[in-house]
Amino acid sequence: MGRYLSNILLQDALNKYLEDLNNSTLEEELIDVDESLGRMTSEAIYANLSSPFYNCSAMDGIAVKAQKTFMANEQNILSLKEYEDYVVVDTGDPIPKEFDAVIMIEDLLEKEDGYVKIYQSAIPWQHVRCLGEDVVEKEMVIPSFHTIRPQDVGAIISGRVDKVKVFKKFKIGIIPTGTELIERNQEPKIGDIIEFNSRLFEGLIKGYEAKPVKYPIVEDDYNKIKASVLKALDECDMVLINAGSSQGREDFTYDIIDEIGEVCLHGIAIKPGKPAILGQANGKPIIGIPGYPVSAWVVMENIVKPVARKLMHKNIEEPIKINATLSKRVMSSLKYEEFIRVKLGYINGKYIATPVKRGAGTITSLVNADGVLKVPQNVEGLEEGESVEIELLNNISNIHNTIVSIGSHDIVMDILNNEISKKSFGKVRLSSSHVGSFQGLLAMKKGECHIAPIHLFDTETESYNIPYIQKYIEKDVAIIKLVKRTQGLIVKKGNPLNIKSIEDVVNVRYINRQKGSGTRILFDYLLNKNNIKKKQVNGYEREESTHMSLAKAIENNDADCGLGIYSAANVFGLDFIPLCEEEYDLLVDKSMLNSEYIQILLDTIKDKLFINKINTLGGYNTEVIGEIVNV
Amino acid sequence: MGRYLSNILLQDALNKYLEDLNNSTLEEELIDVDESLGRMTSEAIYANLSSPFYNCSAMDGIAVKAQKTFMANEQNILSLKEYEDYVVVDTGDPIPKEFDAVIMIEDLLEKEDGYVKIYQSAIPWQHVRCLGEDVVEKEMVIPSFHTIRPQDVGAIISGRVDKVKVFKKFKIGIIPTGTELIERNQEPKIGDIIEFNSRLFEGLIKGYEAKPVKYPIVEDDYNKIKASVLKALDECDMVLINAGSSQGREDFTYDIIDEIGEVCLHGIAIKPGKPAILGQANGKPIIGIPGYPVSAWVVMENIVKPVARKLMHKNIEEPIKINATLSKRVMSSLKYEEFIRVKLGYINGKYIATPVKRGAGTITSLVNADGVLKVPQNVEGLEEGESVEIELLNNISNIHNTIVSIGSHDIVMDILNNEISKKSFGKVRLSSSHVGSFQGLLAMKKGECHIAPIHLFDTETESYNIPYIQKYIEKDVAIIKLVKRTQGLIVKKGNPLNIKSIEDVVNVRYINRQKGSGTRILFDYLLNKNNIKKKQVNGYEREESTHMSLAKAIENNDADCGLGIYSAANVFGLDFIPLCEEEYDLLVDKSMLNSEYIQILLDTIKDKLFINKINTLGGYNTEVIGEIVNV
Repeated sequence: MGRYLSNILLQDALNKYLEDLNNSTLEEELIDVDESLGRMTSEAIYANLSSPFYNCSAMDGIAVKAQKTFMANEQNILSLKEYEDYVVVDTGDPIPKEFDAVIMIEDLLEKEDGYVKIYQSAIPWQHVRCLGEDVVEKEMVIPSFHTIRPQDVGAIISGRVDKVKVFKKFKIGIIPTGTELIERNQEPKIGDIIEFNSRLFEGLIKGYEAKPVKYPIVEDDYNKIKASVLKALDECDMVLINAGSSQGREDFTYDIIDEIGEVCLHGIAIKPGKPAILGQANGKPIIGIPGYPVSAWVVMENIVKPVARKLMHKNIEEPIKINATLSKRVMSSLKYEEFIRVKLGYINGKYIATPVKRGAGTITSLVNADGVLKVPQNVEGLEEGESVEIELLNNISNIHNTIVSIGSHDIVMDILNNEISKKSFGKVRLSSSHVGSFQGLLAMKKGECHIAPIHLFDTETESYNIPYIQKYIEKDVAIIKLVKRTQGLIVKKGNPLNIKSIEDVVNVRYINRQKGSGTRILFDYLLNKNNIKKKQVNGYEREESTHMSLAKAIENNDADCGLGIYSAANVFGLDFIPLCEEEYDLLVDKSMLNSEYIQILLDTIKDKLFINKINTLGGYNTEVIGEIVNV
Repeated sequence: MGRYLSNILLQDALNKYLEDLNNSTLEEELIDVDESLGRMTSEAIYANLSSPFYNCSAMDGIAVKAQKTFMANEQNILSLKEYEDYVVVDTGDPIPKEFDAVIMIEDLLEKEDGYVKIYQSAIPWQHVRCLGEDVVEKEMVIPSFHTIRPQDVGAIISGRVDKVKVFKKFKIGIIPTGTELIERNQEPKIGDIIEFNSRLFEGLIKGYEAKPVKYPIVEDDYNKIKASVLKALDECDMVLINAGSSQGREDFTYDIIDEIGEVCLHGIAIKPGKPAILGQANGKPIIGIPGYPVSAWVVMENIVKPVARKLMHKNIEEPIKINATLSKRVMSSLKYEEFIRVKLGYINGKYIATPVKRGAGTITSLVNADGVLKVPQNVEGLEEGESVEIELLNNISNIHNTIVSIGSHDIVMDILNNEISKKSFGKVRLSSSHVGSFQGLLAMKKGECHIAPIHLFDTETESYNIPYIQKYIEKDVAIIKLVKRTQGLIVKKGNPLNIKSIEDVVNVRYINRQKGSGTRILFDYLLNKNNIKKKQVNGYEREESTHMSLAKAIENNDADCGLGIYSAANVFGLDFIPLCEEEYDLLVDKSMLNSEYIQILLDTIKDKLFINKINTLGGYNTEVIGEIVNV
């Protein structure tokens, strides 16, 4: 504990590390050509046979002796005798030794049994694919250090080569460590963590064109971990230890590497991922990878990948980058290069980048991200509206085919996401950011989204959405009516605290929604109407960003009560005290209404299948779904 | 025979064909999440468990009751009692139900056995990773029609999902047909063709993310082919028949498709690849693919790929394109869109595209190509120097790391290619075009290559290379001395025709090198010197473009004699009558001499290993190898 961690720049760390590692030579193996796709040759491949290995006809026609045709022309029609002067050949047929040219069937004047007439002389070797036209025996077909592609397999076989020498697959051992880890098929109990990083690593390693070797979970025991590392070192070309790279009470990675090899450096100026340990034994890299999945991912992509590719003698292709406008301010640490995951939308011809959840523990932030924004060390942050460079994690065509939704959360939006994917066979997807109705309204105003789901209650007019739109949005927008939904108090099953109305929230542990969400605005309105002060509400400050997570917290007894929608209560079998029905609509730029994507969205929400699914959830009224209201 | 072939534009053919095919629904299957990487979900995946599934500490420290810390500040140090007011927690440890916040270890003022002192209050839920922070139970983790990536696998496992519903792999059956075809492990005899297209297809199909199913070779027998097609149709989602798509005597593909399903169209305006047949049975595509490998490749990439990807509900990523300058004139058919394979070089900041061999039968043209130039229908050709768009077949970084050599052929250049690959661990490669010394000289003049291997004999001064350079090249160039090599007459083993000198070539079947090659110039000089007329030489017009193919033709008794280098004769165990020693040098732009690539080349040719390999070939003098001569 308290060991000093360095804070070296990523590129410097990599350079230092690669210098320290021996550029160890990969072993080679002899494999069947049928297995060679994607492998790298360790020796040049030479043809054993020419291709073609005999002179053959390139056309359907007759093989002739060119010399015997020299006199033929339009004035001097020549008659040739079969088997003596010519033989019939199809494309690919061998040319008998005594012949040296082919006349195409189209150029024969007359063809009778045993005779043909010609009116053109043949140039020697015309329409003949000569021996070795493609590959000459004993010539090099493929050089060393070449990664074999489908056409290379074809050329190797055509040169009659059966076995090729290639480098063995580069094996990367993965050792998950931690007493709290369980395999996914074990029964989880409080305190357990289902181990999934090793599967994330496996997938990434396959992408690096290396071979992952997953070892069993090892508990936090110095000797057991050491034994596993020694085994992996013996069997693999590189070893990853996950986690134990920090300085906690049970972080053994440093000491183990230090004992069996040497630590090159510990601590890199990246966030997340800073406590990575780069070490080696006998020239084989051993890397200690932090435990949080996003930290682990950053270390995999930025350290493990370049190191492995270098040792495999493979290039690292530059990531594809685009310029995007940042939709909100990003704060960053001066001390570290930060890796911010962003969603991307293509809106009115511009790419808009919106940061997703930043916690290093949220694997879903990688699921939802379309790209990574790297904020360099010594930069305090980036402002909203700034143009930034994003490294893509997703295909650009997927980004172009995404309907960007920013605003309120409802389970309906999750279902809509799935149904749009189905309707478009995966071509179009819906990407939702749950930031609350008011932020959605502002995102629409600023042109950062295609649609904004909102349910904003105006206390003056006691009506939904339209007053807000009229007040805040200047451009031409329309409303796509989605659902009326029932808001109320979500309480525990059987309502043990006997909560009956908004006035009862002062006596229980409340759980709230985030600022700017329509449900929060509604809650504040209800408090005000009932003369309850925010201070009186125990838990007013505790925020969840979706109805689902709020309901789940109540189910788990972390809170007694929260305002939310009926369907969320229903999912978890909780009790529900209805308070009001509100209008949950989609705000859309009018110029977008006729776009292909909004049409697919409209087709989807008007589909009976979709409507049935929503009604099954309960608490929704779908009477006017799909109607368009101009504002 | 004589069936009418259509000549429909590629895009129109594709559109018509896709319309004709049912957008058949893929079957789904339930698979283990460990096997799910790269598969496409057929149903949305919902979490079975929240992640984390309990409130846990985000830091190393102590779990406290926030309410009990409210009074703490610098003026009011609070003392907390272990187990009553707090418990020690490490990152990831569960927070017991009675606590609701974490204070970091760094923020503890004093820590004794059983007591800690604090000087700051804790906000409820600070440093706590709340239940469901990442994934909430029963929420959607992954929608339908989503291709599973490594991070998705992580998220699915963290939501405790074991099995996922995905679409079955799209199977494409490959049926090689042709009585002349043999498997690569069979003993080839004249008339046989080693079947390799099916392996080319397998590799390509894997790249399309489908699953290839290779069927055995079927001889040209209507019923046998039909039986194989029916079996493949039963087992696969798409069937490819190769070949038999033309109108030859044994081309059955059309009639078989017509019998068991229907032909949508036969004949597309592409070259090569025009006789492709697009058909279907029960909505499953059956495609007749021409036999020549390049024709087959064009049909695979331009028809099979988009059709398969469409039916798999996958996007087709746009190919990466660059603009390049065409180094030589390309003639094209007005009737077809032509697919010209080109090599690419990056020279003085410009991409230079040089067409490779055009024969549809040469698989090596695909091995050597870096890109494809598509010449549209109704365009007669493209001029030298024109700017053209090239679709890349190779990584752009490989193209940037290529030393482009244009000029004379020598086996030494093949070895150099391999040794440069080895020396640079595959980073740098040498790409050689064998067009002869004089064309190499002109390519250097025009800035189309980095180096030009030349051996140009000046009859006036009876010296090599320098007179030509002085006459034709204006810019500053240098010569890298490579080898002196022995030229002479290559004749059959044992020299059965007793050829002794250049005068004897008039009595035998000669085989020549192509116009512009140094060897041809030398031959003409020798003829002239000996008062022999070209007309007197039987076979003067027969051209080979490498020493190897010339020697192979003599070994095969297609000719009796040809001028060439000793090493080529040696490879095939032929006899050799030495005539002269010539200087085979590398011409290089002086400004390039200090470039990284030329330095690697110089390091390579001065390497003993390389010199030894050359000397083993015989007929070379390497005394001055690597010396630089300024011209």
